[in-house]
Amino acid sequence: MNKPLILVTNDDGIVAPGIRALVEVAAEMGEVVVVAPDSPQSGKGHAITIHDPLRLKKVKVFSGIEAWECSGTPVDCVKLAKHVVLKGRQIDLCVSGINHGSNASINILYSGTMSAAMEAALEGIRSIGFSLLDFSFEADFQPAKPWIRKIMDFMLHRPFEKGQLLNVNIPKLPADAIKGMRLCRQADARWVEKFVEGRDPSGQPYYWLTGEFVNDDKSENTDVLALEQGYLSIVPSMHDLTSYKALGQLAELENQ
Amino acid sequence: MNKPLILVTNDDGIVAPGIRALVEVAAEMGEVVVVAPDSPQSGKGHAITIHDPLRLKKVKVFSGIEAWECSGTPVDCVKLAKHVVLKGRQIDLCVSGINHGSNASINILYSGTMSAAMEAALEGIRSIGFSLLDFSFEADFQPAKPWIRKIMDFMLHRPFEKGQLLNVNIPKLPADAIKGMRLCRQADARWVEKFVEGRDPSGQPYYWLTGEFVNDDKSENTDVLALEQGYLSIVPSMHDLTSYKALGQLAELENQ
Repeated sequence: MNKPLILVTNDDGIVAPGIRALVEVAAEMGEVVVVAPDSPQSGKGHAITIHDPLRLKKVKVFSGIEAWECSGTPVDCVKLAKHVVLKGRQIDLCVSGINHGSNASINILYSGTMSAAMEAALEGIRSIGFSLLDFSFEADFQPAKPWIRKIMDFMLHRPFEKGQLLNVNIPKLPADAIKGMRLCRQADARWVEKFVEGRDPSGQPYYWLTGEFVNDDKSENTDVLALEQGYLSIVPSMHDLTSYKALGQLAELENQ
Repeated sequence: MNKPLILVTNDDGIVAPGIRALVEVAAEMGEVVVVAPDSPQSGKGHAITIHDPLRLKKVKVFSGIEAWECSGTPVDCVKLAKHVVLKGRQIDLCVSGINHGSNASINILYSGTMSAAMEAALEGIRSIGFSLLDFSFEADFQPAKPWIRKIMDFMLHRPFEKGQLLNVNIPKLPADAIKGMRLCRQADARWVEKFVEGRDPSGQPYYWLTGEFVNDDKSENTDVLALEQGYLSIVPSMHDLTSYKALGQLAELENQ
């Protein structure tokens, strides 16, 4: 393979430290183009912008790297990268992140970072989302870098499997405490949530979401367990939400 | 079962004709509470509002039916319904829609209607999303109603399977032309997209997404095929995006 073309995006916005760390690794491995949101887009899931026009602006954020900021969601960024910024060029790999905070388990549904990676996979691009289990702006991304390099190298050179992507989560540990990588399935965990209720300065009520992540899935091969044990979790993921188990169970519905 | 409590939501907004048709069917079957977006939220996927407070307002939209409009996304509506509007009450069924336009195949990922249904399923609520293959504001929802009644009745009375939901799409056909219902898997179709480029009145460039839905999945049991043949498609769906097939294929990655 010639020097691969690597698209980098995220959901924390183009100035987040996490994407900078990812760009640094990617720049060692290929030609890098960044297309990322101009504002934080956490929790945007697979949202796309239909009813409004999008803005796209070339910016100098990373030394020597072509970078564009976009007014839309992470999924919009991937679409604009493919159809406008890199029109006609083959994108060899899309990497999204490094997200500030976990995208293990069902967080993949809510995550803009992972939805961007999913969108690239839908477009036939090799794709990986990376997340570090540390929400802090000052998070230390150094211990993650050698692992990210290994996983990117693996994905760049293995036979391409259409539609598949990797959801990679990295424990918040010093470099010498990370035990290795584990292939896992997505834990069947959940958020136990509530709304903080308040009054704004004009006396009108508002509701603000808050919650706690709870894992009742005690099986052996989940991403949440791997992370608790000090491993990176790698969940191969796809866009198919069909419940094949339920297809059989519901057969009688056809005859109603 | 006593009179069931049915939550109704959508993504086209609380004044869309589609949700009115769904409320009419639901009101024959149980106590109905509506919590729906105060503006169109198509394409919002599984987005949630994290960085802003949400507004929730009781409104008179449906005669004799408790209804609330919410400033957030469809998924926000379900969370607010559970934790604020219906706090402490058991929701027997959540129905989302009727969406103006198809949510078959991968549209489930982008759809606010289906993400609301998915969120209810994640919260342990029986859940169904309904969509009619007609984008028009003047779409005729009458032919869909008897089918929706049957499917809701079936879901209300069958043993509960945690996390599962139904993605129901309804062909745009007169009542006597609809052939029946088909249990299907999600077709592996895709959007072939482009951006319309333009200049705003101040001369700045903008990009506006447009695209065409293309189905290359020629297998027998897809939702897209069932709809083409004049059937309602019913895809039992789940929140697990793990690619189990890939778990085996990628084993060597653990040893890198």
